Amino acid sequence: MNNFIFHSPTKFVFGKDTEKEVGQLLKSYKAKKVLIHYGTGSIKRSGLFDRVVDSIEEANIEYVELGGVVPNPRDTLVYEGIDLCKKENVDFVLAVGGGSAIDSAKAIAAGAKYDGDFWDFYDHKAEMKDALKIGVILTIPAAGSEGSASAVITKTDGMLKRGFYSQFYRPQFSIINPELTYTLPTYQTSAGIVDMMGHIFERYLTKSDNTLFVDRLAEGTLVSIIEAGKKLMEEPTNYDARSVICWAGTIAHNGFFGVGRVEDWASHRLEHELSALYDVTHGAGLAVMYPAYMKYTIDEDIERYKRFAIKVFGVQEEGKSDKDIALEGIEKLEEFYKEIAMPTRFEGIHAKKEDINKLVEKLKENVGKTFGHFKELTMEDAKKIYELACS
Amino acid sequence: MNNFIFHSPTKFVFGKDTEKEVGQLLKSYKAKKVLIHYGTGSIKRSGLFDRVVDSIEEANIEYVELGGVVPNPRDTLVYEGIDLCKKENVDFVLAVGGGSAIDSAKAIAAGAKYDGDFWDFYDHKAEMKDALKIGVILTIPAAGSEGSASAVITKTDGMLKRGFYSQFYRPQFSIINPELTYTLPTYQTSAGIVDMMGHIFERYLTKSDNTLFVDRLAEGTLVSIIEAGKKLMEEPTNYDARSVICWAGTIAHNGFFGVGRVEDWASHRLEHELSALYDVTHGAGLAVMYPAYMKYTIDEDIERYKRFAIKVFGVQEEGKSDKDIALEGIEKLEEFYKEIAMPTRFEGIHAKKEDINKLVEKLKENVGKTFGHFKELTMEDAKKIYELACS
Repeated sequence: MNNFIFHSPTKFVFGKDTEKEVGQLLKSYKAKKVLIHYGTGSIKRSGLFDRVVDSIEEANIEYVELGGVVPNPRDTLVYEGIDLCKKENVDFVLAVGGGSAIDSAKAIAAGAKYDGDFWDFYDHKAEMKDALKIGVILTIPAAGSEGSASAVITKTDGMLKRGFYSQFYRPQFSIINPELTYTLPTYQTSAGIVDMMGHIFERYLTKSDNTLFVDRLAEGTLVSIIEAGKKLMEEPTNYDARSVICWAGTIAHNGFFGVGRVEDWASHRLEHELSALYDVTHGAGLAVMYPAYMKYTIDEDIERYKRFAIKVFGVQEEGKSDKDIALEGIEKLEEFYKEIAMPTRFEGIHAKKEDINKLVEKLKENVGKTFGHFKELTMEDAKKIYELACS
Repeated sequence: MNNFIFHSPTKFVFGKDTEKEVGQLLKSYKAKKVLIHYGTGSIKRSGLFDRVVDSIEEANIEYVELGGVVPNPRDTLVYEGIDLCKKENVDFVLAVGGGSAIDSAKAIAAGAKYDGDFWDFYDHKAEMKDALKIGVILTIPAAGSEGSASAVITKTDGMLKRGFYSQFYRPQFSIINPELTYTLPTYQTSAGIVDMMGHIFERYLTKSDNTLFVDRLAEGTLVSIIEAGKKLMEEPTNYDARSVICWAGTIAHNGFFGVGRVEDWASHRLEHELSALYDVTHGAGLAVMYPAYMKYTIDEDIERYKRFAIKVFGVQEEGKSDKDIALEGIEKLEEFYKEIAMPTRFEGIHAKKEDINKLVEKLKENVGKTFGHFKELTMEDAKKIYELACS
């Protein structure tokens, strides 16, 4: 087990009606003026926005609002939010939404406490030294941003998608009411499931030694996600299945599964280019990349892939070679993606084989010559993985 | 899944040589004067104390020290620590040791910020509103106090053992270097293993619905603890096994396995009376209580005990009744306790059957008429469980 620091200080307030506690929670963090940051108007149509505002007003806290976050959130809205926070003396940013709203809120919170251009952080030109406090009301379990220290923003000029990591990005609290996710379209529920599984894969696929303890926890979580994912295809308002997805999505990305090991993140790098070029939902892009990535790297650690097949998908061993068992696990993963109506090839996300060179070029701009830790990948490897994702 | 709050803000700094980072860590929390609180002189003989002091001095932080913590830590030393903190203007309490040193440090940290008698908290006469900041260098993985919000103190007058729970009791940071546990006597290693498994059992044994996701995580952790525990009997300096025990012990009691469910804690209540009367190590007392408690409550949820037997101990199902499978799981647990040289009956801890009425009387004083959630137990039940623990 490698040395590690695990620090997930966020207070997770989980369960039915918990959004009504937001005012009191904000008060406990001494918030005076809150920016409510959200995406489309769906939280207004559903009545969630009103419940949130009622709770905030009851706690005698002022607020301003900024909607309009889109998937793969843009720097343009971040700049708008920063200006608003500075002008209105906002001291707390409350994201109401999924990963996009939360990531956008995080960047706003950092930019509001910085004199220069917030993109400096993403360009590695400046060190983040402060940020406004951040809170979350989660409506889409997927990105894990409600418990994570990272935020991915897309620079509109050039569609450059970049991530940044800082302890200042950890929310003070995250309110997670599984009922708020009942009305998500199947596509979003499923893309979220792929996303959180991916956060586990990026940690599960490691070359570090002696990782079995945390591997077991990862496998138990993957089994639970798959079980709940299947149930939600039949019964989208099953509270328990929604709960599993919500909590699994949170711990999948707060660092818990990364302790004691080197993480990978190659598939995420590959997918980021798809999202940036085609504006595809991150989870859908990942459903295309993981099978290709796994097939390409299977010989790096057949034992690990074999274990994955057996423990997560219950693949039977008799009469099969280790590699066959390992491959069957990857096939089962693909089958599961299909079962939850996710694409598993380029065409399913309207990506084009002839764009591969462009994707690889962009990737090189973002990662340099090589990337990934489970297998150190070159741009030639990246090209082959993209090709595998086509056929 | 029941509503829950999960809030484990402690920064866990885990791995080799991490104790040397304590000075910089304290500095990051703006500590000016630290109380180093510990047990016997073993940390001085091992050189750990010197390494800690070197790191603190390098960071230009002042310190005072107070040793002498004993297992089942006493109020008398807590009072001494409180006086010292007040006199010396200590602003940070650093526990170097196991659960006893940490619990004692927590009580000192609270008492130092309170004008009355710290026992008021334990008597439920006062609400804790502040405490000095707390840090930990862990040397005994067992109690989980390095990540928990609780501290158990024994009032010397009457040997009254009581626990208290507060977010102020969460350490700011906990340094966990598995190598520091290499020299623990087998008895302490094993008692620690029983203790952390107990922290999982108290959450695993629940009547709450839809707990399967977290149950799986608990089972994976128990399997890993048992595997590592066996290895340490042969090879006490196996770093990986020590690592598993250290990390499992921490997450076993930071609340992670309690989310979404009602916890039990009956066996802990029963054991606390053993510790108080015989001054027996908590883990050894628990090794006596769990088999008895589990046998007594097996009919409350045969399915759960059956699952425990299969998932944790790999009990084979063919040709056996559900109850037989469940019972076999409890037998396997007893076997494991014996394998790691733990007692499983009263006589192994020099407890006496004729003291049972006295134990029950004390228990009643502490818990009232009934206790436990998995099965609500009366004093009559308690008596029967103690009796089961004799034979």
